[in-house]
Amino acid sequence: MTKKEKKYSVKFRVWIEEGEERFLGMGRVMLLELIAKTGSITNAAKEMKMSYRQAWQFVEEMNKYAKEPLVEKILGGNKGGGARLTEAGEKAIKEFNKFENKVKEFVRKEFKKVKL
Amino acid sequence: MTKKEKKYSVKFRVWIEEGEERFLGMGRVMLLELIAKTGSITNAAKEMKMSYRQAWQFVEEMNKYAKEPLVEKILGGNKGGGARLTEAGEKAIKEFNKFENKVKEFVRKEFKKVKL
Repeated sequence: MTKKEKKYSVKFRVWIEEGEERFLGMGRVMLLELIAKTGSITNAAKEMKMSYRQAWQFVEEMNKYAKEPLVEKILGGNKGGGARLTEAGEKAIKEFNKFENKVKEFVRKEFKKVKL
Repeated sequence: MTKKEKKYSVKFRVWIEEGEERFLGMGRVMLLELIAKTGSITNAAKEMKMSYRQAWQFVEEMNKYAKEPLVEKILGGNKGGGARLTEAGEKAIKEFNKFENKVKEFVRKEFKKVKL
């Protein structure tokens, strides 16, 4: 039988749980990055086309499952308060991205050896 | 601030696409393994608590996106026909599992270095 020509690619997702609960993954790290960039959960949610309610829930969960909160609210200000990352939040982004990039590199390298 | 005690674990998923379509992942490989074990798509679907329709669709997609079909129907027989893996199907299981296990090993090893 003639083999069909195919164009394969590999995809992956990696995430961290605390107990059985999702703590940190690519989407949540992107949310943290956008909170740092925009200064508020509302604006970060908008950029991700996510509801404020969903973004807020992710932040609450991350703060709950982290050893120290990753996001803190800033009271006052002309928009009625924003949010910013704590030191732990900044570190979580760096650690997760470093880890994810290493996994990505490995997955791509190993996938070249897969005979399909 | 006192750090809360946490128990973190890492999870991952890896899958292969052809073009932009899902070709092979953990669930589909399990389906292939169960087809080999049970001799039919119907029984394999039952063991996975998946509808026959869904299992059939997965098999059709795998056959379509593989260079050669992975599953072939056996006509006749007292149950009106079963299914079995082709050589390409057996090989796809082995290659995917080998790849997935290497990724798992790497992910676990690297995760130990992540400071949360």
